[in-house]
Amino acid sequence: MAHVTNPQAEEILDKEFKCLNAGFVRLIDYMGGDESIVQAARVSYGKGTKTVNEDRGLIRYLMRHMHTTPFEMVELKFHVKLPIFVARQWIRHRTANVNEYSGRYSIMKDEFYVPEHEAIHYQSLRNKQGRRKEDVPPELRRKVLDILTSSHTQLYGEYQKMLEDDIARELARINLPLSLYTEWYWKIDLHNLFHFLRLRMDAHAQYEIQVYGEAMAEITKKVAPMAWEAFEDYVLKGERFSRLELKVITEQLDVQKITKESLECKGLKGREADEFLEKLKNLAKV
Amino acid sequence: MAHVTNPQAEEILDKEFKCLNAGFVRLIDYMGGDESIVQAARVSYGKGTKTVNEDRGLIRYLMRHMHTTPFEMVELKFHVKLPIFVARQWIRHRTANVNEYSGRYSIMKDEFYVPEHEAIHYQSLRNKQGRRKEDVPPELRRKVLDILTSSHTQLYGEYQKMLEDDIARELARINLPLSLYTEWYWKIDLHNLFHFLRLRMDAHAQYEIQVYGEAMAEITKKVAPMAWEAFEDYVLKGERFSRLELKVITEQLDVQKITKESLECKGLKGREADEFLEKLKNLAKV
Amino acid sequence: MAHVTNPQAEEILDKEFKCLNAGFVRLIDYMGGDESIVQAARVSYGKGTKTVNEDRGLIRYLMRHMHTTPFEMVELKFHVKLPIFVARQWIRHRTANVNEYSGRYSIMKDEFYVPEHEAIHYQSLRNKQGRRKEDVPPELRRKVLDILTSSHTQLYGEYQKMLEDDIARELARINLPLSLYTEWYWKIDLHNLFHFLRLRMDAHAQYEIQVYGEAMAEITKKVAPMAWEAFEDYVLKGERFSRLELKVITEQLDVQKITKESLECKGLKGREADEFLEKLKNLAKV
Amino acid sequence: MAHVTNPQAEEILDKEFKCLNAGFVRLIDYMGGDESIVQAARVSYGKGTKTVNEDRGLIRYLMRHMHTTPFEMVELKFHVKLPIFVARQWIRHRTANVNEYSGRYSIMKDEFYVPEHEAIHYQSLRNKQGRRKEDVPPELRRKVLDILTSSHTQLYGEYQKMLEDDIARELARINLPLSLYTEWYWKIDLHNLFHFLRLRMDAHAQYEIQVYGEAMAEITKKVAPMAWEAFEDYVLKGERFSRLELKVITEQLDVQKITKESLECKGLKGREADEFLEKLKNLAKV
Repeated sequence: MAHVTNPQAEEILDKEFKCLNAGFVRLIDYMGGDESIVQAARVSYGKGTKTVNEDRGLIRYLMRHMHTTPFEMVELKFHVKLPIFVARQWIRHRTANVNEYSGRYSIMKDEFYVPEHEAIHYQSLRNKQGRRKEDVPPELRRKVLDILTSSHTQLYGEYQKMLEDDIARELARINLPLSLYTEWYWKIDLHNLFHFLRLRMDAHAQYEIQVYGEAMAEITKKVAPMAWEAFEDYVLKGERFSRLELKVITEQLDVQKITKESLECKGLKGREADEFLEKLKNLAKV
Repeated sequence: MAHVTNPQAEEILDKEFKCLNAGFVRLIDYMGGDESIVQAARVSYGKGTKTVNEDRGLIRYLMRHMHTTPFEMVELKFHVKLPIFVARQWIRHRTANVNEYSGRYSIMKDEFYVPEHEAIHYQSLRNKQGRRKEDVPPELRRKVLDILTSSHTQLYGEYQKMLEDDIARELARINLPLSLYTEWYWKIDLHNLFHFLRLRMDAHAQYEIQVYGEAMAEITKKVAPMAWEAFEDYVLKGERFSRLELKVITEQLDVQKITKESLECKGLKGREADEFLEKLKNLAKV
Repeated sequence: MAHVTNPQAEEILDKEFKCLNAGFVRLIDYMGGDESIVQAARVSYGKGTKTVNEDRGLIRYLMRHMHTTPFEMVELKFHVKLPIFVARQWIRHRTANVNEYSGRYSIMKDEFYVPEHEAIHYQSLRNKQGRRKEDVPPELRRKVLDILTSSHTQLYGEYQKMLEDDIARELARINLPLSLYTEWYWKIDLHNLFHFLRLRMDAHAQYEIQVYGEAMAEITKKVAPMAWEAFEDYVLKGERFSRLELKVITEQLDVQKITKESLECKGLKGREADEFLEKLKNLAKV
Repeated sequence: MAHVTNPQAEEILDKEFKCLNAGFVRLIDYMGGDESIVQAARVSYGKGTKTVNEDRGLIRYLMRHMHTTPFEMVELKFHVKLPIFVARQWIRHRTANVNEYSGRYSIMKDEFYVPEHEAIHYQSLRNKQGRRKEDVPPELRRKVLDILTSSHTQLYGEYQKMLEDDIARELARINLPLSLYTEWYWKIDLHNLFHFLRLRMDAHAQYEIQVYGEAMAEITKKVAPMAWEAFEDYVLKGERFSRLELKVITEQLDVQKITKESLECKGLKGREADEFLEKLKNLAKV
């Protein structure tokens, strides 16, 4: 057997997916794909599947039952250019490997995140974090942008002045702002990447990191399309309900009316349908 | 501020919770509790809560929104005696610290797991793993127990014979069976413990590890009762639905009939109720 | 058995160890100490030690042979206030738990790192990172400090202006500089803390993080004094030599002259001395 | 840029490296090599190196200074067949991904580890763990092998008997011995693989896991030959000395006699030589 590759992924290898005003995400390398998830699962669960269709079923089964270790067998390596305040949220995901551009070794480049007009928002009223939807008037947007960009010029100028005076790089850089761009190589396995995307593509995440999440979703889809589909169906577009919420919901449900036939119309069939019916039966009992 | 302790936890410190025929779990030490979860969350989200009631609300909020890091601020250390086949499943949880009794350094004790009569079951027909409910006739149970216990005596005898001949311990032990008991110290943070319990208290987990899960649940409840309650409500007794399953469910739901008042009767109030209503509204839209 | 505590550690619990112009480290809580390292090692290596002296010997043995897991059985929780550029280096240590003050939820405070005069240095000529020893003339120091502090005032003013205009906190903060102070709770086990200290107390680490390393070393010493001593002797003040370096060194050594008696004069006795003599004998052979 | 591959590694992809009587290690897939270590280091430390020779120097510099993150950018995936008692030591390395053959899902195969005659040894007198060199007489070896192999036949027969009676697989297997073979897929980054090999190729590791370590060393050499060379020189064949040991050594050393010229004869040149001389100078001072 040779390396598991995917023509769709090969095509985008190394291509820049633009993010924000000057950032990007690039897939530098990857190891494995849907095929290697199935291969690893087979070691645990026995020979099994041979057709593409069976592969898809197995991958969905693994996702549904949180058998996460086979997804760890796929690895992706990204090159990312991103503002430091985004990097600070990103790095909280610990199960990854990172090499970042170092301001101690190298001179930071004159590149800063400047939000687009539409990204400038008022403080959310309902959430302590986040922005509210209401439009900010153009003149306030202008004012904000003026403040941001004029300090960029000034701060970078001061940085250069200190470097010209031969002040240590590691010291000269400490007044550069969180909007400055940095770069890194970031390597992670598919299971942990899904966890990252679940949190960072969420509407509660800061807009700027969501942009990176979307770009990485595009890339991930190409590396492992079946796994992505399962992740989307069960996690991204799925929902969790608490014990009390389930009580409210099941009271309204007429479980008798949900049959294998009615499920099939909605695309739920085979083992997925059986397991759903059993789940409903168990809930009705509680 | 002194160490965060909990009188209920202090009381069970060091007590053996029996598991299976010769195993146990003991809480050896712990650091923190509900109070330290709140304390850590406050660093991130600002001053806030002061009353016990507000603490409970905050902990439930954190659990609901998967803000898991404050739960990592509580640490528990267990002393466990368990059969090796259980240990092999357990050790798959990597975010923990372990010190195990070593068969290279020390002589293994003459203690083996022998299942109770009721724990002897036929192979499940529906799951490749697991047991089916149907009763095994007493004479077959007897036969199984005879096989198991007679090899214990024999294998331990052979082990001793090799030790008497001064064969290296690390070699003499290799024919001891997976039912042999081992011991370890196992330390983990509360977030990762919850993850462990979610998987190991599940009906699909092997019966023998479920027994340990139940014992540890008892202990955990005493260390962080509010966190436990939130974990139970949102995770253990909660449920996840996929995109397609949600479609089936929401078609039957009459969201108009679910009001804040009706929710309050079922114990769902305040922010929890608001967020539930919004979740339903969003689902209805899709 | 009750919680393992240490009177010396109890005394400093919660006390601020000042770092830089406005930062600090505080020990918030801890679990275990030398005693729990010994206790965990005993599970693996058998009953053994009873006297304090034997405990010390065992801990040194563990450190010498990189039996690191018993050190993981001790846990320390710190509250730290630190400049963001220090936080960015610190967070690279992944085996730790963190809760950081959030600029999305809360308003950042008006506190910035300003180096002392003596901390302002020229770029090192020999290392790409780091500072050189040569003194910077007072007028250049003054100039640097003027640049730094005047932007602090300006940037914080602009931040406030945007907050007054009700711009989202998560956006208003992006131009704040890396010298701004943040705070976090940081929890780690002793083995991984030692690794952190080894790297961050090193002369090649940035001066500002070394300051925190020194403060944490003071604290760690009080929690586990014997483990600290072993760490200092074997790691911090020890040295590694490569294959080629060993060749050069051993050529000059007259191993015959190194006897158990001569070693004892220098404080090397018992098992430590035996193992050293054997190490030398093996090197001489190569 | 395409995937980083290495012709030498491509050649052995999927080939079984036999270990013990029935085990093996196979390289299933890998991502990156020396080239990707250099690539990642360049992100942090700036453009730099272009020639193969410079690449080698950079890799050695990274290894020497424990700049370990670029080594994490290489990933290797192995398929391993190994006795359960070896698997139990192996799995203690937590920074890896694993999918193991499951005795709950599948029927365990009739394959057991049987040591070769030469691997049967007496208990070490000096170490609590380990074997001593002295030869075991042939008749005792025979006796040990008889004990081991006759129980294999018996235990596997009993296992089959219980399976025939339709006893649950997860239960029927619990009396199988630690010498039974299992299989897994094991994926790890190069830095953590080096750590694994350092501990498991060590003379103090159990002989049977050393055999696997040697096989994996062969494979690793082909994936990243320069990194392997650096690891061998600085870690595997290097040595650590404690504070007191250094005192003894440096007293005997005549540092004046060690010159750049004398070092060059031994293969120590350039930056490596400079750093060594400085290390010696610093030690002489203490």
